Amino acid sequence: MGGIPFIVSAPSGAGKTTLCKKAVDFFPDLRHSISYTTRRPRAGEVNGVDYWFIEDRVFDEMIARDEFLEYAGVYGKRYGTSKKDLDNLLSEGLSVILEIDVQGADQIRERLPGAVGVFVLPPSIEACRVRLKQRGKDSPEEIEKRLNIAVEEIRKAALYDYIIINDDLEAAFEHFKSVIAAEKARTPRMLEKIAGLFGAVTEIK
Amino acid sequence: MGGIPFIVSAPSGAGKTTLCKKAVDFFPDLRHSISYTTRRPRAGEVNGVDYWFIEDRVFDEMIARDEFLEYAGVYGKRYGTSKKDLDNLLSEGLSVILEIDVQGADQIRERLPGAVGVFVLPPSIEACRVRLKQRGKDSPEEIEKRLNIAVEEIRKAALYDYIIINDDLEAAFEHFKSVIAAEKARTPRMLEKIAGLFGAVTEIK
Repeated sequence: MGGIPFIVSAPSGAGKTTLCKKAVDFFPDLRHSISYTTRRPRAGEVNGVDYWFIEDRVFDEMIARDEFLEYAGVYGKRYGTSKKDLDNLLSEGLSVILEIDVQGADQIRERLPGAVGVFVLPPSIEACRVRLKQRGKDSPEEIEKRLNIAVEEIRKAALYDYIIINDDLEAAFEHFKSVIAAEKARTPRMLEKIAGLFGAVTEIK
Repeated sequence: MGGIPFIVSAPSGAGKTTLCKKAVDFFPDLRHSISYTTRRPRAGEVNGVDYWFIEDRVFDEMIARDEFLEYAGVYGKRYGTSKKDLDNLLSEGLSVILEIDVQGADQIRERLPGAVGVFVLPPSIEACRVRLKQRGKDSPEEIEKRLNIAVEEIRKAALYDYIIINDDLEAAFEHFKSVIAAEKARTPRMLEKIAGLFGAVTEIK
């Protein structure tokens, strides 16, 4: 049985990355898709764990070979998701979290119709500002730029299957866990799983 | 915000009633729909808690006034769901579990398009037989009759949104809880909930 691809998007500072890490730690059959990027590693980031860090030239070659499910330029650097990496995980029966920005999600939705979209919403723009400041990775100007983009991104939340408000991290994680578990119990996936158990069930599929 | 109606069906002996009771105990905003029936109360059953026990004449009057969302005859007795009772709960923002047999679910699906269907599947027909024997409410002949009907009912599982296999009660309950929690996070319901919080989000609904 194939795994489920989950597309997770959020404006900067909504807490998406923390939620996704917790989910991957929790579900033994859930993996994180590792994106390819042309930006330099930040302190502590590991190649093949956080990202595949590649040269611009290699990125261009991957585009030329149509290896990306989606790619996008963010703040002058490029990020892309390998279709082959994803297919390999799914065909092993593993579900996969793809942390994708709103632009990239639009591309994937068309190319991966079985994907489940989850939008993580901050309780307010002010809460994003506080999180970005606490993270301490961006300059004040960079933070304001990200917040302006955030407002635009939030307008796309309605295109996702689920919306999770990340007000309290534990409560948001409970919701996210429920979404992942419930999607596994969806009838088309269950019919695949139980085929043979009750031959009759699948007859009227 | 309106609550969500969950239609829960299962063949006899799948453990549906136990699962539904646990869910209603767990979620403070979830209620059990109380059906109307013309059968006599069994030992320990309470009017207005387990069922509304009514006379055939009253049942006929309710049909005449079109008060039933669905009704059906099962083993010679009639059972029905009051549309007004359901609407009252939903409009208070409460979600409602409707334990409905497969026939009745077909009627409701048409009249209540927002309902979420959950089919509880036993791990095997043999497991149903064991549960029905343990319950001790039916004669051996009655049990065989119920099992024959069960096989027919299972053929309808594919018409529901979710399928939960009740092999282990606690695991099945975790799945059921996830389905209920995830449905609350579905985008159309969340947009209703967060309208005003982010005006922009609802613009592209």
